[in-house]
Amino acid sequence: MTRATNPSASPTIGIDLGGTNLRVALVSRDGDIVAEEQVPTPDTFEDLVAAMAENVRGLTPPDTVTAVGVGTAGMVDFEGTVHYAPNLPMLRRAPLGKSLRETLGVPIVVDNDANAAAWGEVCHGAARGCRHALLITLGTGVGGGIILDGGIYRGAHGFAAEVGHWQLDPDGPPCACGEPGHWEAAASGTALGELGRTRAAEGRAPNVLARADGQVDEITGYHVGDAAEAREEDGLAIIEEYAGFVALGFVGLANILDPEIIVVSGGLVALGDLLLEPIRAAFDHHLEGADYRPAVRVVAAELGSRAGVVGAAAFARELEIDG
Amino acid sequence: MTRATNPSASPTIGIDLGGTNLRVALVSRDGDIVAEEQVPTPDTFEDLVAAMAENVRGLTPPDTVTAVGVGTAGMVDFEGTVHYAPNLPMLRRAPLGKSLRETLGVPIVVDNDANAAAWGEVCHGAARGCRHALLITLGTGVGGGIILDGGIYRGAHGFAAEVGHWQLDPDGPPCACGEPGHWEAAASGTALGELGRTRAAEGRAPNVLARADGQVDEITGYHVGDAAEAREEDGLAIIEEYAGFVALGFVGLANILDPEIIVVSGGLVALGDLLLEPIRAAFDHHLEGADYRPAVRVVAAELGSRAGVVGAAAFARELEIDG
Repeated sequence: MTRATNPSASPTIGIDLGGTNLRVALVSRDGDIVAEEQVPTPDTFEDLVAAMAENVRGLTPPDTVTAVGVGTAGMVDFEGTVHYAPNLPMLRRAPLGKSLRETLGVPIVVDNDANAAAWGEVCHGAARGCRHALLITLGTGVGGGIILDGGIYRGAHGFAAEVGHWQLDPDGPPCACGEPGHWEAAASGTALGELGRTRAAEGRAPNVLARADGQVDEITGYHVGDAAEAREEDGLAIIEEYAGFVALGFVGLANILDPEIIVVSGGLVALGDLLLEPIRAAFDHHLEGADYRPAVRVVAAELGSRAGVVGAAAFARELEIDG
Repeated sequence: MTRATNPSASPTIGIDLGGTNLRVALVSRDGDIVAEEQVPTPDTFEDLVAAMAENVRGLTPPDTVTAVGVGTAGMVDFEGTVHYAPNLPMLRRAPLGKSLRETLGVPIVVDNDANAAAWGEVCHGAARGCRHALLITLGTGVGGGIILDGGIYRGAHGFAAEVGHWQLDPDGPPCACGEPGHWEAAASGTALGELGRTRAAEGRAPNVLARADGQVDEITGYHVGDAAEAREEDGLAIIEEYAGFVALGFVGLANILDPEIIVVSGGLVALGDLLLEPIRAAFDHHLEGADYRPAVRVVAAELGSRAGVVGAAAFARELEIDG
């Protein structure tokens, strides 16, 4: 049996497009990365499509690719057109799916990168076997993927799961999108650094400040995390305060969506239970009717930064099976 | 063809259980109420089940009922057990579906009352033909029903769509659930009265105050609404401020769920565009990427207080068709 006649058993291609890097990976049906290319994200739409095609061809023998999955930052419709992506200015109503399909001559599925990562965790990671799951990425912003009834939920137009963009506190820090006090602005990894700087400026984070060589403006979330890992009181306190903001968002999303599990991804999950335990404690405390419902598990993602390409490849595999 | 052999063409029974009243209605397949009984909600679980059964039998000839749909306040699982309902203290892990099935001897579907109302609006009201819709009821609290991919979304355990319970403002009014500053506490009809009292106490709502005979504590949302309908400046200003809170919630939910339409129900929709226009204006202003996506329609519900029984009857009709 050749790869061409049994495509679902052969590796598939997943692409993860971010503001900084373009990753193209050949992924096995078990979710392992067989081979991968990573290049800086090109500046123009034409160069981007060309770079994607070139790297796909570089990873696969001619005529063996049967479908490609792409996860990209931004709002993506069901045709694979990227309508808006704050960190990818060349993508404004950009027909990414159509252009890549014309270039490669195979079916293409394009979805939001957080959806791809969520699907990766469902197919091969921390949410395996779950039919109702949230994946929340705490990074530069807050990304989200929503799994409902066993599939990615994309909404009426493909724009669902902008989970960070609702007001948590009108007096909170401004969101990258321009709105005041969105959850994203309080719960992102960026916000953790901000909180560290604020507490240090107040004289309440001496150990965190020392880790940034005494420079308040140099404090990032990493310094806070390092202090917490060393069990320094100020680092632990800032993590706990931050975890409270994260948990308030989980509570709202769980009240709306009633998931079985919330998978937390992003660099901060390296902190493990130092971060997750205070999130869980605050979450259980605030969840509506918590005494009357099964517990919602809050767990760390398992695939790390490869969730996006792995999930995108899983999208492609479904295209092959459907087709 | 008799009714018994063509149940989907015959009227079905819908029940709407609220904290004050129990409504039982015979509903035609077109969503019209053919006959209806309304009694005060009994105080005990046993009396409640008995009253439901008695009124079902009173509305239908013997042996003609083939399924019953129930919408009830509270958190309802897929077995029809009501786990928790703040305004119905006799329902704590109460097996409503099972008890009613044993009493009436027909299939029973029990769901949240807001889900039933949402389904009523989708089957016979303002959201006809929509596959992705939100129904939001602005009443004593804020109720919600979520329609995704053409069906009611109930979540992993049946507890989804608690749409009012997420933090909008930590300094906002306390929510009935005990949490500070939930959206419900700012956007319910109750909150409109509260806002009216606050503005009157500040001396900023003279016309609203006059409508309550000069008694600040007597002001309700109705006085504010009446002042707005009379185009009195203070009434219009309070409605606009309140509409801003409502819209912030719609924005968050739309960013998360990407619906085609948001249907607003509850007594306040009698204000029509006086309420809906400021909601729409604020909603469009704050929606993520609004310039890059199709407009989300914000419309008034069409079924009024009968949405619950009509939707519950539609649930029952599906049971008949499935069975």
